[in-house]
Formats: sequence, structure tokens, C-alpha cells
Amino acid sequence: MKLLLTIAYVGCDFHGFQCQPGLRTVQGTLQSILETFYNEKLLLTGCSRTDAGVHANCFCLTVEGKLFESMPPEKLPLAIAPFLPKDLSVLSAKLVPDSFHPRYDVLYKEYVYLIENAAVHSPFLSGRAWQYPQKLDIDSMNNAAGFIIGKHDFSCFMAQGSPVATTVRNVISLKTERTSDKTVTITVSADGFLYNMVRIIAGTLIYVSEGKIAPADIPSIIESRDRTKSGMTLPPDGLYLNRVVYK
Amino acid sequence: MKLLLTIAYVGCDFHGFQCQPGLRTVQGTLQSILETFYNEKLLLTGCSRTDAGVHANCFCLTVEGKLFESMPPEKLPLAIAPFLPKDLSVLSAKLVPDSFHPRYDVLYKEYVYLIENAAVHSPFLSGRAWQYPQKLDIDSMNNAAGFIIGKHDFSCFMAQGSPVATTVRNVISLKTERTSDKTVTITVSADGFLYNMVRIIAGTLIYVSEGKIAPADIPSIIESRDRTKSGMTLPPDGLYLNRVVYK
Repeated sequence: MKLLLTIAYVGCDFHGFQCQPGLRTVQGTLQSILETFYNEKLLLTGCSRTDAGVHANCFCLTVEGKLFESMPPEKLPLAIAPFLPKDLSVLSAKLVPDSFHPRYDVLYKEYVYLIENAAVHSPFLSGRAWQYPQKLDIDSMNNAAGFIIGKHDFSCFMAQGSPVATTVRNVISLKTERTSDKTVTITVSADGFLYNMVRIIAGTLIYVSEGKIAPADIPSIIESRDRTKSGMTLPPDGLYLNRVVYK
Repeated sequence: MKLLLTIAYVGCDFHGFQCQPGLRTVQGTLQSILETFYNEKLLLTGCSRTDAGVHANCFCLTVEGKLFESMPPEKLPLAIAPFLPKDLSVLSAKLVPDSFHPRYDVLYKEYVYLIENAAVHSPFLSGRAWQYPQKLDIDSMNNAAGFIIGKHDFSCFMAQGSPVATTVRNVISLKTERTSDKTVTITVSADGFLYNMVRIIAGTLIYVSEGKIAPADIPSIIESRDRTKSGMTLPPDGLYLNRVVYK
């Protein structure tokens, strides 16, 4: 059996999830705390690699070891809490079969991109949202989203330097909503995401709101597979891994 | 004329509003930035003193000087934004007569105390809420609040070491609400507040939820003017100055 953990973290002070020598990462921080807690070497495997500054309301990972089977997993979140830094929490823990893989067994993941749609910035959203002063055109953004939903080669929404076997992904849903008078969220779920895909989709929808790209242009942009035709890559501050659903 | 500013700040990294030698305070930080911006010595006067760690969604202060009259005040929030630290924002600015006083002219102020009512802590609320794991009894807390509302001598809700002319205050409203499945807010407005008054009222309502104090005991606790009969002082993390209303 493996332990499947659901964790949450504020990404501001982490250099992403994955271990990197000399840098504070979620994996490195959690591994060190769990190894001290269980007094053994453990293998941690995440559901994805989040970039530096990206947040998680819900991130899943497995922990492989021996000793942890001695404690009921449901007790772990409270037992480990006093040892965690203030920007990281373990929300839940359960046992899963050895055959379970936290990345390959994902049915779909949901990301939220949070935009502070206000001229004056709230200090409570520093590092936690991307500020955009002009009023967003939610309707246009949702019209454009309609052309992105579906199974496509999404090369046009992929950053360079990330070799993958296939650039085809299935975007299950994509919705822009005004969640308060000063916040707008873009919520997207897919069976998988290319490198920076959510941040480029969000940046493309910003271009749609600005009239730089028409919603009806989206099919030809996707068809082109040309990154230079889509919008800017928005900063990591607004990005949250929100949900991971397994098969 | 004076300039009346409305500001917001995350209190975590400030030693309160008021200037203190060698410590990072909101007043000290803002004064230094404004004096550089306007290139003159300025006098800042706040609507209250918030303690270290206390936040403000809305805090009012006046700025007295000469040069600032040269710029339309409504332009200040955006003009000053690039010079502010990420935990402080100027939300609005307007001119007020010299006779205006940001503390003495307050009609009432509203504070919110945010409780994370959940067993497992969210990293997004670190320093921004007080965590309380047991489910709160909102009805009992509101029953007790009914006895606090009104004009009373609130010595029982005042911390030591804060000499004041009178300990009588008028609590205009006091309400506990469940705002999500994991958050509860206590919102209180009054014509003035004694030292630590909101944090002690909130702590007293926690004792009510726990059954340590019955709602019907509140009148005799207020009558006693005895701080030892009320509840604990909750930490500053959950406290927000939320609104300042002037005459």
C-alpha cells in the first residue's frame, strides 16, 4: 500500500512542487518533515509539477515507505500539522494500492486562475492573484472558451522547452466568471495540461477581452499550432491547482 | 485642507499602525513613502491604533502638509501604488477641511473577527484568521451578543494598561455568522472600542459556544466590570478593521 495525501500550499515562497537542489520546494519541505516524522526514507510522487509561485488548494501525491502503515492514515493530517510550515497543510490521507499512480491515474485536473479585476490592488491578494485594471469582457471570454473546449492539439498554448509525447489534450470545461466586484476566475479542467497551458489560455482570453483576438479566431489559432499566435503567459501568482479527480 | 486617505493592509509583518522606533509600522512605512513622494515633512493622524498583527480592510488617516494640494487627490491611489510594499494599499484619497479629525469625528467603526472553524488549517489563512477546530454554536453566540449590544461600561472587556477617560461605549451591532463551511465571522460596530475589546468579546463568545459562559450570564459579567469574568483575548490574526464611518 501507498499513502495518498491531499495537500494545500501557498506557492509564493516555494520554487514549485518538485525537489530542486538548494531551493525551497513543496516536495523537499514535505519529504524532510515526513521522513523525520516516520523516521525512514520515503518516496514522494506528485500528481503534477507546479511552477514557482503557483498555489494549490488541492494537490495529490503518494508516499511510499514502511513505517507509516503503523498509524491510521486518517490521523496524519492533525498529527503532522504542528511540524508543517504555515504555507503548507496536509488536508487528508488514505491508503491506496501499490498499483495506484498519482499522475498516470488522473481522470482530470481543475485549475483556477484568479484575476484581481480592479484598478487599485488589495494587499490581501499580493502574490495570490494577477491584477488587471480594465473591466473584463466576460461574455467574449466565454465565447472564445467555447472554441477551446474539446480534444485538440494544443501546441499553440504550450511554452517551449517541454518535450512531450503528444500535444493533444482534452479540455473538458473552461469558464470565466465574475466572482465578486473585484475578482474574476477562469476555471479549466482537462485530462492533462501542457507546460504553462493554463497561463497561456488565460492570457489568450485576456487578449479576447481586449479585442486583440476575436473569439472566432480561436479555431485557426489552435489549428496553426503556433505559440506566437496565442496570448501572453500570465504570471504564476493567479494560478491554483484546485482539484484532482482520479479514475 | 487635509488629505483623508483610506488604506488597507495585511497586518502580519507590521508592528501595528502607530510609529515605534526601530519597528516596521504602517504609519512609519506610509509616512516615509509619502514624504519622499511629496518631498516635504508630513503629519499623519490615524483613526485608531491597531495592534501588531491586526489587519485593515479599511483604515482612515489624515495627512497634513502643503505640496499635496498640487495634485488632484483622486489620482494619489494609482500614483503612489508603485512605491508601496505589497502588504499595504492606498484605496482612496480626498480633501477634507482642517477641522476634520480622523479619530474624534468617527461616528462608528466596524471590526470583523475571522475564525477558521476547521480541524485542519488552510495555509491561505495563516496569520489571517484564528483557527478553532470544534464546531461553533452560532445561535448561542448570537444570543449572548444580544446582551452586549447597547451602551454599557465595558470594563470587563478591556485589557489592562490602557488608561481612558471613560469605559462606557455604545455597541451598535454584534453578529456571528457562518460565512462558509470552514469560516465564521464575528462583526461588531461601536462608537469606540476599549483596548483589546473586540478580541475579548470574541473570546467571550467562544466561551459561550463552549458552554463555559451562558448567554444569560453576560449582563452580570458586564455589571461586574471585572476582566477576569469574561473570556480569553483572542490573537490578533483574525482581527480586521473593516469600516470607519464619519459623522
